[in-house]
Amino acid sequence: MIWLNGERAERAETAALPVADRGYLLGDGLFETLLVVDGNPVFPDLHLERLYQSLPALAMPPRYGRTQILKALSDLAADMFAATGAQRNVLRLTVTRTGDRGLAMSSEADQNWLITGSPANPPPASMRVKVIDICRPASAPTSRLKSVNYLDNILARRQAVEAGADEALMVNEHGRLACAGAANIFFMRDNEILTPPIAEGALPGTRRARLLSHAQEIHDQTGLQLLEVPVTRQDLAGCNAAFLTNSLMGAVPITCI
Amino acid sequence: MIWLNGERAERAETAALPVADRGYLLGDGLFETLLVVDGNPVFPDLHLERLYQSLPALAMPPRYGRTQILKALSDLAADMFAATGAQRNVLRLTVTRTGDRGLAMSSEADQNWLITGSPANPPPASMRVKVIDICRPASAPTSRLKSVNYLDNILARRQAVEAGADEALMVNEHGRLACAGAANIFFMRDNEILTPPIAEGALPGTRRARLLSHAQEIHDQTGLQLLEVPVTRQDLAGCNAAFLTNSLMGAVPITCI
Repeated sequence: MIWLNGERAERAETAALPVADRGYLLGDGLFETLLVVDGNPVFPDLHLERLYQSLPALAMPPRYGRTQILKALSDLAADMFAATGAQRNVLRLTVTRTGDRGLAMSSEADQNWLITGSPANPPPASMRVKVIDICRPASAPTSRLKSVNYLDNILARRQAVEAGADEALMVNEHGRLACAGAANIFFMRDNEILTPPIAEGALPGTRRARLLSHAQEIHDQTGLQLLEVPVTRQDLAGCNAAFLTNSLMGAVPITCI
Repeated sequence: MIWLNGERAERAETAALPVADRGYLLGDGLFETLLVVDGNPVFPDLHLERLYQSLPALAMPPRYGRTQILKALSDLAADMFAATGAQRNVLRLTVTRTGDRGLAMSSEADQNWLITGSPANPPPASMRVKVIDICRPASAPTSRLKSVNYLDNILARRQAVEAGADEALMVNEHGRLACAGAANIFFMRDNEILTPPIAEGALPGTRRARLLSHAQEIHDQTGLQLLEVPVTRQDLAGCNAAFLTNSLMGAVPITCI
């Protein structure tokens, strides 16, 4: 199911992008991936908060308001559930603009807002990860923005899979851990849960944000302290458990680094 | 003028991309930008060499052979010249694939090969550049591949322009100079011309490659030694001239860093 610039389409063939879309040409765009459970988007406010907070970095005054996009997401989610009865689905919202070939960008450019719906795979029971030597720079805007620039992550994931793992861990320019190819990472050490700060090149994930916002409750209920701190490769040796989070998987334990 | 997967289209509206194009969704694609002078693509072999050498890194067996693409480029270039009489035009060849939402990629995915033609701006007489603190990692595949992941460069350029310059210089994870937002950089010091090696995060530019392949002639004719060496920010103070190169501009002197 597809929603493109306010219009619904039932088949991908009838919804097409202009060849001058700068998301396609230059990675000039942002996206969000939302889990849908029983016809309802999960944490849509967290996703829209991140998207609308990121648009100014690309000098993109939003073509659609939050209320309108929230309604489009909810309608699509409900219709997918009605049509398939599938408990878990996924919505992807992509925001790009049409424009010129060069690096210079215009805030007045026509924007393309696309929402696509598809079935969600069940989350894996556990994952094996491998540290891959592809730098995810703390100082690069694409590390902090959920942008469509994912080729380094695609290739890091591929290296990890070729080495027998399921997912890649990427390091920043200081050699410290940033995040996984498509997930945030949490390490458990004694009574602490550590996760790299955004300033270390960690993507500001929605599940990560939600966990951190519940740090006090987690501490009260389990005695565990949830902390944003830089994590070195040497720190890994002292960890007794670790897990990955993203919007589709929730939290998944790591069985092997 | 447009060529999409073997078909010609006269208007952008009649050539459209599938919404499942992974270049658009995830930056999973490569491109080349060729200058066209008097109806002839300039150094097409250098561009196709770089593209076809890079495709295996994305596990993309090429959908079209070099001869076929060279002919498509030449035909489009000739037709643009015939239609407009413009001395300078530009061709952009973009190679992506259609596929799933996730990071995993399939070598069997349908590929989209797009060529678009448009007028080329005259090259600037000179440029002012500014070093921007956005890391372009030497260890990232996107630094070595001419991929569609350009958002960091777009934002670096924007920062440079806001500071009164024309182009950004980007540094690698070691704090050394890598390349400009959309150009390679050369520094002149005494009787040497220095340019950062590919291993430092410099894009393997076609004009850069051509200059380096003529290092001996340059030395014989001018006494200048053209060297690939790491360049620190401190080295800049000792330089008495610098220039940028890319396929559209050729070589352009820098008047201010």
